[in-house]
Amino acid sequence: MKNYAIIVAGGSGKRMGSSIPKQFLEVNGLPLIMHTLYLFYRFDAKIQVIVVLPSSFITIWKELCTTHSFGFEHTVAEGGPTRYHSVKSGLKYVSNDNSLVAVHDAVRPLVSPEVIISVFRDADYYGNAVPVMPVRDSIRERIGADNRPLDRSKLFLVQTPQCFRTSILKKAYLQNYREEFTDDASLVEVDGGKIHLVEGNSENIKITKPSDLMIAEVMLKAGEKRL
Amino acid sequence: MKNYAIIVAGGSGKRMGSSIPKQFLEVNGLPLIMHTLYLFYRFDAKIQVIVVLPSSFITIWKELCTTHSFGFEHTVAEGGPTRYHSVKSGLKYVSNDNSLVAVHDAVRPLVSPEVIISVFRDADYYGNAVPVMPVRDSIRERIGADNRPLDRSKLFLVQTPQCFRTSILKKAYLQNYREEFTDDASLVEVDGGKIHLVEGNSENIKITKPSDLMIAEVMLKAGEKRL
Repeated sequence: MKNYAIIVAGGSGKRMGSSIPKQFLEVNGLPLIMHTLYLFYRFDAKIQVIVVLPSSFITIWKELCTTHSFGFEHTVAEGGPTRYHSVKSGLKYVSNDNSLVAVHDAVRPLVSPEVIISVFRDADYYGNAVPVMPVRDSIRERIGADNRPLDRSKLFLVQTPQCFRTSILKKAYLQNYREEFTDDASLVEVDGGKIHLVEGNSENIKITKPSDLMIAEVMLKAGEKRL
Repeated sequence: MKNYAIIVAGGSGKRMGSSIPKQFLEVNGLPLIMHTLYLFYRFDAKIQVIVVLPSSFITIWKELCTTHSFGFEHTVAEGGPTRYHSVKSGLKYVSNDNSLVAVHDAVRPLVSPEVIISVFRDADYYGNAVPVMPVRDSIRERIGADNRPLDRSKLFLVQTPQCFRTSILKKAYLQNYREEFTDDASLVEVDGGKIHLVEGNSENIKITKPSDLMIAEVMLKAGEKRL
């Protein structure tokens, strides 16, 4: 069984108020995306990683790899206008023969090693595995100008890495782009798949704002101590 | 116009893996709940604060006030088995005459001063104001053994402080307890009110796990620098 990971780094960092895209911002001496990548190499030193980047950032990424002596072999793919297009571009480098592929956001460096293990294990068995967390806040739904409460005990926050048998994900990506394809699970589902949920970890937030970056700094430092 | 704040501190801290309830855990030299209280006194030095605590913690709280020279006058009310019962207990100390009352979780010390200002301002105008944030993760809903994606662009995470014209909240709390009353907005709504949403702040998380506590530590330190 061969393992692949597509690391999607499409963002241009506007929300961070920084000219450096957020996936490249340095946290504890390393670009955010490198923290993320190391987690996957730690899970499987032979994993095939595909980093999907906007074309304009590919040179910056290569320079960062040199600066930080990032020695792991990986493929760089060119991103597209949406997440759908970026993952599809990365999938071209994934071979179909009895393999598993995880798709993960570059700006989620706080996923736990346990969650990475469980999505690969369960995807092997069920065909897919998607990490989720219970919703801790009350949730409201907008209906026109009104809004109503939802029953949060039935709701889950969906995270990445979402892991799939490669043949299943490749087939799902034969579908044309639709706006409701906000994650890979939604594509597989519309394609007829039943989504298998696994427990995520609550620290696994998307780093998109300066305050998130501060959180990442503290949590990554604590993680290093733990390792 | 008189302002009240009911600070609900009902938790017994089991999730924190600590014998000290989470609202009393020290962050940057002060119990979490004191950080929260100071925010309301900073908004309005004359605000009437009611701290709702489980009866077994009232002595500890009074000792903490002495230890940390917490000099602000406030009322202590005894909490009940659920949030509904605790808020109802606190409401007994709120007088009805043309006042506003905010209900806030003691374990949310990261609410921004701007959000406190806007919930009081909008509650004065609309009768209520509830801070919400857009949902950044994909959301799934469990339906029996299955699950389906929801349209997250229509969803909001609900936070506190939720602020009300006192007469409206008191009337809503005449209703008997129901399990779906997860926050004050839901009570007012079932009582016939239309909920007015305002923008919350994304840092305003509930501190319930050790990793949240680390986040609070960093964010509160940054906030002190900003003040």
